[in-house]
Amino acid sequence: MEPSAPTHQAFFDFLTELYTHRLPFNRVLGLAVASLSADMARLTFDMQPDLIGNPVQQTLHGGVISAVLDATGGLTATAGMADRLGAIPAERLAEAVARVGTIDLRIDYLRPGRGRTFTATGRVMRAGKRVAVTRMELHNAEAVLIAVGTGTYMVGT
Amino acid sequence: MEPSAPTHQAFFDFLTELYTHRLPFNRVLGLAVASLSADMARLTFDMQPDLIGNPVQQTLHGGVISAVLDATGGLTATAGMADRLGAIPAERLAEAVARVGTIDLRIDYLRPGRGRTFTATGRVMRAGKRVAVTRMELHNAEAVLIAVGTGTYMVGT
Amino acid sequence: MEPSAPTHQAFFDFLTELYTHRLPFNRVLGLAVASLSADMARLTFDMQPDLIGNPVQQTLHGGVISAVLDATGGLTATAGMADRLGAIPAERLAEAVARVGTIDLRIDYLRPGRGRTFTATGRVMRAGKRVAVTRMELHNAEAVLIAVGTGTYMVGT
Amino acid sequence: MEPSAPTHQAFFDFLTELYTHRLPFNRVLGLAVASLSADMARLTFDMQPDLIGNPVQQTLHGGVISAVLDATGGLTATAGMADRLGAIPAERLAEAVARVGTIDLRIDYLRPGRGRTFTATGRVMRAGKRVAVTRMELHNAEAVLIAVGTGTYMVGT
Repeated sequence: MEPSAPTHQAFFDFLTELYTHRLPFNRVLGLAVASLSADMARLTFDMQPDLIGNPVQQTLHGGVISAVLDATGGLTATAGMADRLGAIPAERLAEAVARVGTIDLRIDYLRPGRGRTFTATGRVMRAGKRVAVTRMELHNAEAVLIAVGTGTYMVGT
Repeated sequence: MEPSAPTHQAFFDFLTELYTHRLPFNRVLGLAVASLSADMARLTFDMQPDLIGNPVQQTLHGGVISAVLDATGGLTATAGMADRLGAIPAERLAEAVARVGTIDLRIDYLRPGRGRTFTATGRVMRAGKRVAVTRMELHNAEAVLIAVGTGTYMVGT
Repeated sequence: MEPSAPTHQAFFDFLTELYTHRLPFNRVLGLAVASLSADMARLTFDMQPDLIGNPVQQTLHGGVISAVLDATGGLTATAGMADRLGAIPAERLAEAVARVGTIDLRIDYLRPGRGRTFTATGRVMRAGKRVAVTRMELHNAEAVLIAVGTGTYMVGT
Repeated sequence: MEPSAPTHQAFFDFLTELYTHRLPFNRVLGLAVASLSADMARLTFDMQPDLIGNPVQQTLHGGVISAVLDATGGLTATAGMADRLGAIPAERLAEAVARVGTIDLRIDYLRPGRGRTFTATGRVMRAGKRVAVTRMELHNAEAVLIAVGTGTYMVGT
């Protein structure tokens, strides 16, 4: 028997609910958590008229891309704290998670943000006690790589 | 008499109208152009419930900050093309401006995004023929420096 | 028969010779090109007393790491121009290659730079006509990932 | 009477000696600390044949620029810890200072690195308990701005 797995699943479920439904700006972006583990996060969202930055080309606003990749990196870094946060009672989780913050973010815009649905993936590069580093990618449904990013997050507890 | 100033003013007016009213995601952010010249741009926006990322602390979403600073850098870089674009007829300006794109962006989150109104300022560091580099800052109304950023933009015509 | 392959090999040989023997600061770093193709570069170097930044821990200077990863990204981006530069006569190659320049660079320092030999790998993320983006990694001989980086390079001809 | 000032001066003198004479790779770069305080550092170095990256244009290697700006940011961040480290006995300072490390670094290369002498300046943007953020600039003797950078440093004690 491995008692920690169910605990971690509750932690991941909490984060999925939080990122999909509770963070106001994530709702503006239409983000939904598609999968989540201690070293990887995947989120999806659909094109909407509100998310357009370039009305001539009908492509995603660069700020939507940076916002999605920041959220993806933050979720990835938080999920990477499962061993430390997985056993915290639900009523105190929101407060613990709210202490995670982005230190800095770099986004590289590789190709225009065209498509109907998009998938953002984050992976942990370094999971330190105080600082986590993640790399993120954004693809459209045709698997075109639209942007990559790197984020550094404060994860001290 | 200096004939280029009025032409440039029409160009800056076009960009002010475009960034404040025509770009859908800029409207979501509530961005308004406060001042604009060939080497500097200033935008303002107000806190709104939709822009919150941290419901515990009631602070701006990190993605709002990156989106605002990307828009600020892009406007700064585009305004920096006034000598090349200032004389283009209005009906072709939208297309010319739509070719400006972010290559990459770095955001440093220095302090929590607290406040009622915010001001983003962009300055040109390098105005090349093909690539422009800008630095951006975000302050709240109490002059607290919330975030800084650096952006690289494709400005070839 | 595929005539371009030998031409490209001569181009890669030229770059290998240039990066290993002709660039003074690369010699200070002790860089040697281990393999090179149109979408990947691999360089190696050995620990030397001169490359130490932290005398207490006997680890690589952060600036050595950034310098190696910049050189790796630059070589990767240049090799990615093989289709355009592969047919240029040898006597004009040095000048063409000298026009490639770093626009910007991000380095993430993940773990201390410990080891006797190190391998830096670069991969092309975007090979545009004017701008190329590469991602780089630095490992030691025990396959520990010491640092990652992203570089943007001017590759217009 | 202000007793802390002399203590801090001893701390700044220690750092000046360390960065100018004790760090092997800083000696390769020829770095000398010109001035140092709790919120600013200034270093100088001279062009040398070993520091050339582009033999056609006789300009600084991009890796020299990144290395110098990383060293400048690290010194700036360390000097910013004067209130915490200024009173540590000299024999334990080296160990305390060795724990400062770069988390990540961004360099923007604005203009070719031409000149005989160069000055790098670092300023503290954020001096947190665990993480410090600095911005750096590199000028030549003609006051041409060659590069700017931003660094994030681990400064927990």
